[in-house]
Amino acid sequence: MPSVSAQYSIVLRVKIDHQPGMLGLVATAIGEAGGSIGSVDLVAIEGGHTLRDITIETAGEEHAAKVGEAVNEVSGAQLIEITDRTFQMHVGGKIEQRNKLPVRNRDDLSMAYTPGVARVCTAIARDRDKAFQYTIKRNTVAVVSDGTAVLGLGDIGPEAAMPVMEGKAVLFKEFGGVDAFPICLSTKDPDEIVQTVINIAPAFGGINLEDISAPRCFEIEARLKQALDIPVFHDDQHGTAVVTLAALMNAAKLTDKRLEDLKVLIVGLGAAGIAVAQIFVRAGITNIIGCDSKGAVHTDRADYQDGSMPGLKRWFAEATNPDKLSGGPADVIDGADLFVGLSGARVMDPSALARMNRDAMVFAMANPNPEVTPEEAAPYATVIATGRSDYPNQINNVLCFPGIFRGALDVRARDITEEMKMAAARGIASIVSDADLRADYVIPSVFNRDVCDAVAAAVADQAKAQGAAVASGSEIGYSPGETEDFKAVRP
Amino acid sequence: MPSVSAQYSIVLRVKIDHQPGMLGLVATAIGEAGGSIGSVDLVAIEGGHTLRDITIETAGEEHAAKVGEAVNEVSGAQLIEITDRTFQMHVGGKIEQRNKLPVRNRDDLSMAYTPGVARVCTAIARDRDKAFQYTIKRNTVAVVSDGTAVLGLGDIGPEAAMPVMEGKAVLFKEFGGVDAFPICLSTKDPDEIVQTVINIAPAFGGINLEDISAPRCFEIEARLKQALDIPVFHDDQHGTAVVTLAALMNAAKLTDKRLEDLKVLIVGLGAAGIAVAQIFVRAGITNIIGCDSKGAVHTDRADYQDGSMPGLKRWFAEATNPDKLSGGPADVIDGADLFVGLSGARVMDPSALARMNRDAMVFAMANPNPEVTPEEAAPYATVIATGRSDYPNQINNVLCFPGIFRGALDVRARDITEEMKMAAARGIASIVSDADLRADYVIPSVFNRDVCDAVAAAVADQAKAQGAAVASGSEIGYSPGETEDFKAVRP
Repeated sequence: MPSVSAQYSIVLRVKIDHQPGMLGLVATAIGEAGGSIGSVDLVAIEGGHTLRDITIETAGEEHAAKVGEAVNEVSGAQLIEITDRTFQMHVGGKIEQRNKLPVRNRDDLSMAYTPGVARVCTAIARDRDKAFQYTIKRNTVAVVSDGTAVLGLGDIGPEAAMPVMEGKAVLFKEFGGVDAFPICLSTKDPDEIVQTVINIAPAFGGINLEDISAPRCFEIEARLKQALDIPVFHDDQHGTAVVTLAALMNAAKLTDKRLEDLKVLIVGLGAAGIAVAQIFVRAGITNIIGCDSKGAVHTDRADYQDGSMPGLKRWFAEATNPDKLSGGPADVIDGADLFVGLSGARVMDPSALARMNRDAMVFAMANPNPEVTPEEAAPYATVIATGRSDYPNQINNVLCFPGIFRGALDVRARDITEEMKMAAARGIASIVSDADLRADYVIPSVFNRDVCDAVAAAVADQAKAQGAAVASGSEIGYSPGETEDFKAVRP
Repeated sequence: MPSVSAQYSIVLRVKIDHQPGMLGLVATAIGEAGGSIGSVDLVAIEGGHTLRDITIETAGEEHAAKVGEAVNEVSGAQLIEITDRTFQMHVGGKIEQRNKLPVRNRDDLSMAYTPGVARVCTAIARDRDKAFQYTIKRNTVAVVSDGTAVLGLGDIGPEAAMPVMEGKAVLFKEFGGVDAFPICLSTKDPDEIVQTVINIAPAFGGINLEDISAPRCFEIEARLKQALDIPVFHDDQHGTAVVTLAALMNAAKLTDKRLEDLKVLIVGLGAAGIAVAQIFVRAGITNIIGCDSKGAVHTDRADYQDGSMPGLKRWFAEATNPDKLSGGPADVIDGADLFVGLSGARVMDPSALARMNRDAMVFAMANPNPEVTPEEAAPYATVIATGRSDYPNQINNVLCFPGIFRGALDVRARDITEEMKMAAARGIASIVSDADLRADYVIPSVFNRDVCDAVAAAVADQAKAQGAAVASGSEIGYSPGETEDFKAVRP
């Protein structure tokens, strides 16, 4: 039987003779064709027929067509239509703009628009900071991409990137209560991207960079952090790093290892791999070895010596691999406590995992096909994590970005500092209690609604502690400035 | 008594002795202080007191304070708090992002985000046009401003412009069902504005330019119209022009005049004044005289001759004032059928209106204080219109922009052509039936919900007729491309 998935979910509209047993025949045909039935809805009964909508998970578009044919071959059943639910749910996009208040009459209009709005404009013109009180800036994040590194699809352009950025906005709202808007850019030039984001920043309280290819993403993020007084966060890098560190914190606790004692092998030194190494170093891990397609990186490597190794990888060469080990992943894995895969399908020979340290941790995050499968890693590893939802311990950025921006916006943070990222990781890890901690539960589910609150609180507290916040959480509801504008309390 | 307004609406929270007649005393005090009471809500009754929220229209912030004091002076009443409703309704902004669908479980996530979203991205990557099917582009307009010419406030900057742009977005949604998002730019450089809008265009189905100062607005609009394949519309110019023409169509009908016979005086040659002249010329009016601060514009004027007159005003000098009349508005008004004021308060001597033609039309649109007040114009004019909501015949852009973008988006128009603007004007005018047409009703109310539909239909029909539309209205719900992606119908 083929492996079915909700992403290939379809609805079959079927006209069935209205006789006992007919639905059973149709359902059997669907099952024999490999389709997995969800709901069965009755649309109408008319003239000796029932019209039904049957929701079915299939293994792909071809398989969906076969399931439809199988139904049509049942005597007394007629296939009317096959609807692809994934495409259908995307029609017109996944988000919309809503008004917080209706405009029913002239009074509403004169407060929300002219002439009353002029008073609010004037208040902000006098004190630009009041934009955080009286505009959407307080709760709105731009999800910015140029469409150059979208999922596993690569450079598909800004229009094709939109469904991902809208999806990101959906998750921001669903999990963090953050309003997000997709900004997909028709330029790949770093200077233009930086200038464009600076130019549109007044409406936004934060910038989430997304799916911008390396190494441009490093420069773009660094320049925007420098130029803007609102948080800038490249989720592909730092979201992955935060969640990976959170998983590691709990996995190390479970296996009774100290972070500073770990030997870590990172395979794949793109934006995410480098960010993971950075947060690991900050967390106290000293023995990291990173492999790119040319093998382990170190300062004796030819491309480091001849200067052709690009900027952040040079940092990697200098900050990691103290023993200057050389070779591919299987050559440098001996004694490693943690394998982190951020590269591609099946790049790791599973048998090499046997040479890792006791209670090995394997985080194989290539999606959809990991560097080693959990089944292959099981004989050698105590804790196994992937990027997939159908195995335990899913390392998913959704655990981080809604909460980290929620916390930053709540205290009007000017920046998301390294310490705030560390706090976010601790926040995620804290959701798994010591009592619940197990090899197959080192990281909470993306649907655990406590995660965002924990991350937001940890991030906000850290921002306040280090002076990165403008307002404290308790003040933001009614800041002194706001009170002055709209509340006058008699003495 | 001062003139009260909803824009200065307040809520007084008052603690009142719980005795018969007390509320009457408080209400009387408010009335005597000049406040106009709306609702009176009971918040609580406790310990011999009632706590009430009294909503009151006042004449301004000082007056509001005086009304509060007057209440406090009533024996047995204590003012707890004054809340300014206009500021209060702006807290956190006036719009928000909403998800069209919840993300409750892994199946939802796998369709709205990874991995299912990749199928939709791939479909758009293969055919960029499908962004109109599967993303918010279909229904989303950017409201773009640099904050240089906001209402009557001038150059107040992008943050302070946000409440207006959010208000515009509110009206887009309320009246046109159009999703709009405010883009307030931290640059005033036309090159940067143009490039920034081009760069962010992939997410949007249309661009509404707003409150950008002249003459930069002309260049910016022209360059964007050239560069983009989605409609670009500077509402301050064309929205005003469309609604003014609509009012004129009905006023001319009422006074039994033909547009081509009219003599028109336009006072104020900013962006709106020039756009009004342009649409008038297109509507067949040949005898137009425009006055700026130096008086009537014509080709013999010194600044035309020496080349210092800027671009679009040169067009004005060449296309209007066939008799090369000179002087101020009062010098050139003789025999005019229509006075159009788009300048400033009280710039017109009312007695000069006596020299206009029979059944004169006076559209004095400076806001909040018109060029002549309706009371002053009444002895001389048959039809009087203003920009204000408290007089009959309000010429308000809200009558145009929601419908014009609704129509353009419905047929996926690539541009808003001159003919589509004319069609929009006819659409607005058509709402006032011949039976209802009167001197104080030549233009429908902004709250007439039929206007947007009429404008949208007229604009969409015109776009289709002239080949400016990509899709016809009936196709856009289920375009052939869309059907292919998600509907398979058995033959």
